[in-house]
Amino acid sequence: MTSRSIATYWIDAPDEASARSRAIDISLEQTVEIPGDIVPAGHVAETIVGRIEALIPGTDSRAGYFAEISYDDETFDDDFAQFLNVVFGNSSLKNGLRVESLMPSPYVARICPGPKFGLAGLRRHCGVENGPLLLSAIKPMGLTTAELADIAYRFALGGMDLVKDDHGLTNQLRAPFEARLEACVAAIARANLETGGQTKFVANITAPADQLRARAMMARQAGAGGVMLAPALVGYDTVRSLAADPAFTLPILSHPSFSGANVILPTAGFSHAFYFGQLQRLMGIDAAIYPNFGGRFGFSEAECRSIVSGCTQPFGGLKAIFPSPGGGMSLDRVPAMRATYGDDVIYLMGGSLLRQKDDLPGACRELARAVGRG
Amino acid sequence: MTSRSIATYWIDAPDEASARSRAIDISLEQTVEIPGDIVPAGHVAETIVGRIEALIPGTDSRAGYFAEISYDDETFDDDFAQFLNVVFGNSSLKNGLRVESLMPSPYVARICPGPKFGLAGLRRHCGVENGPLLLSAIKPMGLTTAELADIAYRFALGGMDLVKDDHGLTNQLRAPFEARLEACVAAIARANLETGGQTKFVANITAPADQLRARAMMARQAGAGGVMLAPALVGYDTVRSLAADPAFTLPILSHPSFSGANVILPTAGFSHAFYFGQLQRLMGIDAAIYPNFGGRFGFSEAECRSIVSGCTQPFGGLKAIFPSPGGGMSLDRVPAMRATYGDDVIYLMGGSLLRQKDDLPGACRELARAVGRG
Repeated sequence: MTSRSIATYWIDAPDEASARSRAIDISLEQTVEIPGDIVPAGHVAETIVGRIEALIPGTDSRAGYFAEISYDDETFDDDFAQFLNVVFGNSSLKNGLRVESLMPSPYVARICPGPKFGLAGLRRHCGVENGPLLLSAIKPMGLTTAELADIAYRFALGGMDLVKDDHGLTNQLRAPFEARLEACVAAIARANLETGGQTKFVANITAPADQLRARAMMARQAGAGGVMLAPALVGYDTVRSLAADPAFTLPILSHPSFSGANVILPTAGFSHAFYFGQLQRLMGIDAAIYPNFGGRFGFSEAECRSIVSGCTQPFGGLKAIFPSPGGGMSLDRVPAMRATYGDDVIYLMGGSLLRQKDDLPGACRELARAVGRG
Repeated sequence: MTSRSIATYWIDAPDEASARSRAIDISLEQTVEIPGDIVPAGHVAETIVGRIEALIPGTDSRAGYFAEISYDDETFDDDFAQFLNVVFGNSSLKNGLRVESLMPSPYVARICPGPKFGLAGLRRHCGVENGPLLLSAIKPMGLTTAELADIAYRFALGGMDLVKDDHGLTNQLRAPFEARLEACVAAIARANLETGGQTKFVANITAPADQLRARAMMARQAGAGGVMLAPALVGYDTVRSLAADPAFTLPILSHPSFSGANVILPTAGFSHAFYFGQLQRLMGIDAAIYPNFGGRFGFSEAECRSIVSGCTQPFGGLKAIFPSPGGGMSLDRVPAMRATYGDDVIYLMGGSLLRQKDDLPGACRELARAVGRG
C-alpha cells in the first residue's frame, strides 16, 4: 500500500501563515494526535502524518484558505469508519474548518465498491430512459397499514416511478414494518396490473441496529424495488456494508434525517457536495435525498447545484448517482427545478400531492406532465 | 402506551408569534411531515402530531425562544433510531433550531436501559472510591503492536486507572486489533503484578459494521476492562444495542470523533449537555469523552460545565455517568480543571504525558499527585 487519499479542507484563517499552522494541526490531529515535536521520526513522520499537498488562498466569494492534505492507506486499512475518522474525526470539533471534497486513493475502492445501480442503473431498474424520475412518500405516520397501502396504490395508479415509506415510518404498531411492506408491494402490484406501469415500492429500513439487515433482506424478498435509510442515524459503515453485500441487490436511497448540522453552517462540518454527493457514493447509495432550494428548508440554489456535482462528477471511479431534492415542493416550483436540475434528477414530492387526496392519480399525472414525462 | 417524551428546542425567532410558528413547524416536521391543514383529524392530529407544551422567551444571555414539544410513544415504538428521528430528524436541516434537552417518557427506558456501570459502577470497577479517575491513550498510529504495548505497560506502571487505544487505532497492519488487544492486556497485567495496581485496558472497537460486535466480545474475552467507540461514526443504535446486551459486561466509553458539527455552532444541532450527556446515557455509555476547555479545542468552560450536568443530573431514571474531558491537557491546567470538575471526572491526558516518554511512569505519578490521587 503506497497510495494516498487527498481531502480538501476550507480553513478560516486571516493569512497564509495561520492557515498553514491550522493545516499542520489538521495533519497531526487526524492521524498521530500528538504534538508535532514528539512525532517519532521515520515511518510515522514520513508516512502516517497527513501531508500538506497544497495551500490555496480563497476567493472573493469565499475568504480563507483551502488545504489539500493527503493520508496514506495505512492510516485506515480496511475500515471505512476509520477512513472517515481520518478525514474529519477530531478536527470536526474545531470551528472554522470544513471538508470541501475528497479524492480517494485507488485503495479506497476496495473498501467502497460504490453504488450497485447508480444513475444509469436506477433508470434501467425503473424503465425510464429519459426525463426525471418521480418519487413520492406514503404518510402521515399514525395511519393504518391499509390506509398507507391505499395511498401507495393511488400514487402507483398515477404513474409515480417510486413510492417510498415516509422516513418516519418504521415499525409503529398501527403500521408495522413487515405488514406495511407486504401491503404496499401488493397494492402497487395491483395498480401496475391496471395501468401496465411499473411503479416500485421503496421500504424504509432505518431500524434498530440488529434488525436493519433483516429488514433489507425482507424488503428484497417481498418484492420491494428499493430501500431507504438515514446514514447519520444508522452509521455510515452500516450503509456501506449493506451496499457492498453481493447478496443485497436493490437500489438504496439515503435520507438526510439527523444530518443537518453536518452541512447547514458554512464554518463547520462538510460541504453539501461532499456530504450529499461524494460521501453517498462512497457508501454505495444510488440516490441521495436532500432538501431542495425554495422549499421549507434553507438550502440555496447554489448549494443544490453543488450537490448535483457531488452526485454526478467523476469521483474515484464510482458510478454517478441521482440527486433527489424534496421538501415542500409544489407544482409551481417545477420550472425553476427543471432549469436547475435538467433530466437527471428524482423529484421527491409528497405533501403537495397529498393535498389533492381526492384525486391523487390525477395530481401525479399533472406532475408528470409538468416535468416533461406526460 | 399513553406517555409522551418532551424535547426542548431553542428557536431563533424575533417575537413570540414567529417562535410559535416555528414550534408548530417542528411539531409537524418531526411527526406527520405534511402541512398542518391536511393532517387527518382524530388520532393523527390528537396523538401523533407533536404537542407544544410550553413556549418560553429566552434570556438576555440567550435571545430567542425555548419550545417544549412532546411526542407520543407511538411515534417511535420500539426503535431508538426512530426516537432520535422524531426528536430532530428533518428539523436538524433547518438553521436557527437546536435541541437543548430531553425528558424521556417512562416508555423510553424500555428501549434504553441506560449505562450498566455509570459513574458509581465505573468507580467500583476501577477500585477508586474517591478522587478523579485517570485515563491515557496509547499512540501514535504507525507504531507496532510491541511499541504500543510497551507504552501501555509504562502507563500502567505509573498507575493510570485506564489505558485506552487512541481512537485512530483500529485494525492497521502494524498493530492489528486482536494482536494489539492481547499484547496490551498482557503488558498491563505484567505491570499490575509489579505494582499491585489494577490498571485496565480499554479497546477501541470502532470498526466495520459487521465486525464491531465481534470486537466487543473479543475485548471482553481477552480481559480488557472496557471498550470505546465513536457513536457519530458507528451509529447511535449500534451503541445502544451493544450496551443493552446482557451478554456484554464491560464499561463503554464514547469518543466524540466526527460529531463536532452537531455541537460547535450555537444555532444548529444539539446543546453540549444533550449531546455529550443525555444522549450518551440513553445509549448506555458509562463515560463520555469530549474536548476540554482551554485545550486545543474551542469548547468554553460553561459548555463543559453543562456537559457535567448532562452527565450527572437526574435524567429519566438512568445512571449518572463520568464526563471525561481531554484534548491538549497538560499538568499546569489541572488546578483550573479541578475547580470546574471536582472529583467525579475522568481526566484524559495523552500527548503531555507522552512528551515525557523517558519517564512515563513518573509523569503519570506526577499527574496523580496533581489531581489529589498521589
